[in-house]
Amino acid sequence: MKLATLKIQDKVIVAAVDTEKQRYWPITAVNGVNIENMNQLVQLIGPKKELPPIEGEGQDLQQAQILAPIPRPLRNVFCVGRNYHAHAKELASSVFKDNSAKADEWPIVFTKVPESVIAHQDTVQLPHGVSEKIDYEAELAVIIGVGGKNIKKEDALQHIFGYTIVNDVTARDVQIRHQQWDLGKSFDTFCPMGPWLVTADEIDPENTELNCWVNGELRQSGNTRDLIFDIASLIETCSRGITLYPGDIIATGTPAGVGMGLNPPQYLKTGDQVRIEIKGIGTLENDFN
Amino acid sequence: MKLATLKIQDKVIVAAVDTEKQRYWPITAVNGVNIENMNQLVQLIGPKKELPPIEGEGQDLQQAQILAPIPRPLRNVFCVGRNYHAHAKELASSVFKDNSAKADEWPIVFTKVPESVIAHQDTVQLPHGVSEKIDYEAELAVIIGVGGKNIKKEDALQHIFGYTIVNDVTARDVQIRHQQWDLGKSFDTFCPMGPWLVTADEIDPENTELNCWVNGELRQSGNTRDLIFDIASLIETCSRGITLYPGDIIATGTPAGVGMGLNPPQYLKTGDQVRIEIKGIGTLENDFN
Repeated sequence: MKLATLKIQDKVIVAAVDTEKQRYWPITAVNGVNIENMNQLVQLIGPKKELPPIEGEGQDLQQAQILAPIPRPLRNVFCVGRNYHAHAKELASSVFKDNSAKADEWPIVFTKVPESVIAHQDTVQLPHGVSEKIDYEAELAVIIGVGGKNIKKEDALQHIFGYTIVNDVTARDVQIRHQQWDLGKSFDTFCPMGPWLVTADEIDPENTELNCWVNGELRQSGNTRDLIFDIASLIETCSRGITLYPGDIIATGTPAGVGMGLNPPQYLKTGDQVRIEIKGIGTLENDFN
Repeated sequence: MKLATLKIQDKVIVAAVDTEKQRYWPITAVNGVNIENMNQLVQLIGPKKELPPIEGEGQDLQQAQILAPIPRPLRNVFCVGRNYHAHAKELASSVFKDNSAKADEWPIVFTKVPESVIAHQDTVQLPHGVSEKIDYEAELAVIIGVGGKNIKKEDALQHIFGYTIVNDVTARDVQIRHQQWDLGKSFDTFCPMGPWLVTADEIDPENTELNCWVNGELRQSGNTRDLIFDIASLIETCSRGITLYPGDIIATGTPAGVGMGLNPPQYLKTGDQVRIEIKGIGTLENDFN
């Protein structure tokens, strides 16, 4: 099932969505509890994964404004760096200082602030005067449904509520100069997310294709089967000593083809458009200004 | 003024505190708005910094349980690494890969998850089986009162609501092996904070002494006058392209004397006690188990 956070006139709601029929069904309550936002829905139905049944003809999706599925994550988004071999190679001399066999032993995990999240078709604000080296990173993002600590790899997929698309927008110069990446990844509007949250049953985390175009030119083309650390391993890693909560988001890394990896590098500028497509989820499209 | 989050029987309140007289005065409302927690108080009075007047004799502080002043920050805590020269030197060969003059040009900023916060006298849970290299880091933490983006250094101190003490507890092996530090800094209970939030008027950010003892032995002794990046610069850095919000916390780095810097290194073990004292704030004390 596809879920969305929608704005209908001035009201924000959570809804089930049929993208082919272009209809939506508001989810207003679960087991007698009113649903105010997606975080709450994930918390309530995370363990059972039983969504309320869809009834009736629904309403016209064209009349709704699509917000990010989780417009304000409860804490910073966990993000994984250097998680596809070809991407590790293309930034080997710039971003990734350690490219030894040892670097493949443990994932690189950093964060983006929750307020950096914007919706499909929202505009990414280029931080003119602060950085001119803005780059895209198409990523499959996992939404945790069942919290836990020290989750074992073999149990990890049971903790997933669903998936969405994230563009891990990055100021390359800021990322590098501070050594730790959180600042260069956390600029306002630097986390386009959506448009849909697709429940876990519809996605194969070990074989999902993702593609990314800049102004219509295909730049990134990857498949999660090529991840250095698979999604179960990432959940095991992030939960080692750290309690994960329903609604936590883990962006799982980007395939080769980022702007910095091109020769010469090509950074985003005013008027550019980045479109990310993930099979089974949909298309996340954002202009840069 | 000293502020605290207190638990009185089962109720959590925000209060003004007199530590000498051992009295507290509940702050239940500001300008007719009920105060539920410290984040809300900071948001409401951040810009004006006018706290409600203290009236009457107050109540017995001994009867209250002291929680962390901000028990659940609104997003990850910003933390600064490598911000005292002597500390940069003691970990030059282990944690800090870049020790060139260039490393002094931009602060290192990473984060700790909000749920890692615990109170004065709470117990830090050693993650047995996950890491045996647990270290302390005594730090002065800034609480933002007035949000903003691209805050200039010369205006930055006006954005501070107050200060508290943070122990930036760290799993050294985890910190290093993942290259990015957020995971090794974010284990459950790894952010002791408190006991008081002291308003900005009572602290000189450029001349504040901090000391740290492990089992009564003085290990760290520093003064914010020796910061590589002063507090105004850190606010300028964190807000460059990123909107800061009232209640945001920036832990400003630790002086020399951490366990990993000793020869041989000495990590924390069950039964150890870490006590941090910052002049003008108070004493933060936590057992490790």
